[in-house]
Amino acid sequence: MDTKKQIIDAFNFRHACKEFDPTKKISEDDFKTILEAGRLSPSSFGFEPWQFVVIQNQTIRERIKTVSWGAQKQLPTASHYIVFLARQAADLRPGSEYLNYIMSEVQKDPQDIIARRMARVEKFQQNDFDLKDDQALFHWACRQTYIALGNMMTAAALLGIDSCPIEGFELKPLEKILEDEKVLDRKHFGVACMAAFGYRLKPPAKEKTRRKPDEVITWVN
Amino acid sequence: MDTKKQIIDAFNFRHACKEFDPTKKISEDDFKTILEAGRLSPSSFGFEPWQFVVIQNQTIRERIKTVSWGAQKQLPTASHYIVFLARQAADLRPGSEYLNYIMSEVQKDPQDIIARRMARVEKFQQNDFDLKDDQALFHWACRQTYIALGNMMTAAALLGIDSCPIEGFELKPLEKILEDEKVLDRKHFGVACMAAFGYRLKPPAKEKTRRKPDEVITWVN
Repeated sequence: MDTKKQIIDAFNFRHACKEFDPTKKISEDDFKTILEAGRLSPSSFGFEPWQFVVIQNQTIRERIKTVSWGAQKQLPTASHYIVFLARQAADLRPGSEYLNYIMSEVQKDPQDIIARRMARVEKFQQNDFDLKDDQALFHWACRQTYIALGNMMTAAALLGIDSCPIEGFELKPLEKILEDEKVLDRKHFGVACMAAFGYRLKPPAKEKTRRKPDEVITWVN
Repeated sequence: MDTKKQIIDAFNFRHACKEFDPTKKISEDDFKTILEAGRLSPSSFGFEPWQFVVIQNQTIRERIKTVSWGAQKQLPTASHYIVFLARQAADLRPGSEYLNYIMSEVQKDPQDIIARRMARVEKFQQNDFDLKDDQALFHWACRQTYIALGNMMTAAALLGIDSCPIEGFELKPLEKILEDEKVLDRKHFGVACMAAFGYRLKPPAKEKTRRKPDEVITWVN
């Protein structure tokens, strides 16, 4: 098939699916591909400041539902349900245990390169991007996490799998529930967003709407 | 071809390409597909709080280069170069001209639904997600924009086109240059990030590194 058509078809296929067919489960292979799309996503400095928590436990889904106005139908019906966590600021400051781990154990950079990169990160946060504030730095980790979120929904759509990105929840009460369920360690993570995956129960209620290309795109020639 | 393999291959193909072959240009059709992947991306409440500015003007690219340590080789060699703008907070507050436009003209919701959605947005910003602070709300717009960014790089990779996401710039000086060039209206937009697209000059300098699946993914069964 023509790849360009395949891509556009996938983006048109994808919609915020509110209710899934509870009898249809995503195959292990397909879901693994969706997770890989997230795991292999790019992030600033390659910090991968995310964690994907797949919530298959129905009791925990029920508890999440009590504080998630935007996931009332998705939580009970989704084949797979992911809570996206993002790293807290402390883990993303130069010299942190996490950044040392990423640079030395994952990216396998030598010590002199690590020292130089840490200085670069310091300047980036304090100066270039103004991420001095911890809340701003957490938002920055969430920004990276949304790259993975987008890629996972796109991978799903390419496989004919539906999804729904979800911000419709009360952040603090949700974090409290997840902490209580030992799913969230708030010292290192906060909730960025959630997403449900599965197969649609019925066609989308509304046609997709978007601003026109010339409203969204500016060419500077 | 097996779609799962095609997806994984694309994610492995994609890397932060630092230097492009200046003689190779992305075809109009291919680049249109990349832009469509961004335009059709999902965003919270469907607000599309983004704008894609394609900088083909070499003089402006040169000016951007003076404040972009992370785009020194990409700017002069990329076939296409995009600055991603995100909406300022004022445009995203309930009752703003932009939100009224999106809801009534793009999403074509009736007035009673709009009133209800605006109230929902108000509660979301003030309460659920704690986006009272204007800087936080701008970061939230950037979060949405990174969904489009990720999707555009993935669409490119599926087409065998290289890309590089870029945060390596001094935010305020860059915004000043873009404002000076009449490319940025700071009343409505700020810079979220940039991305270069084209064809790699040489193979990636380093192999892709990522944390292992069991470090990134937690299953709660």
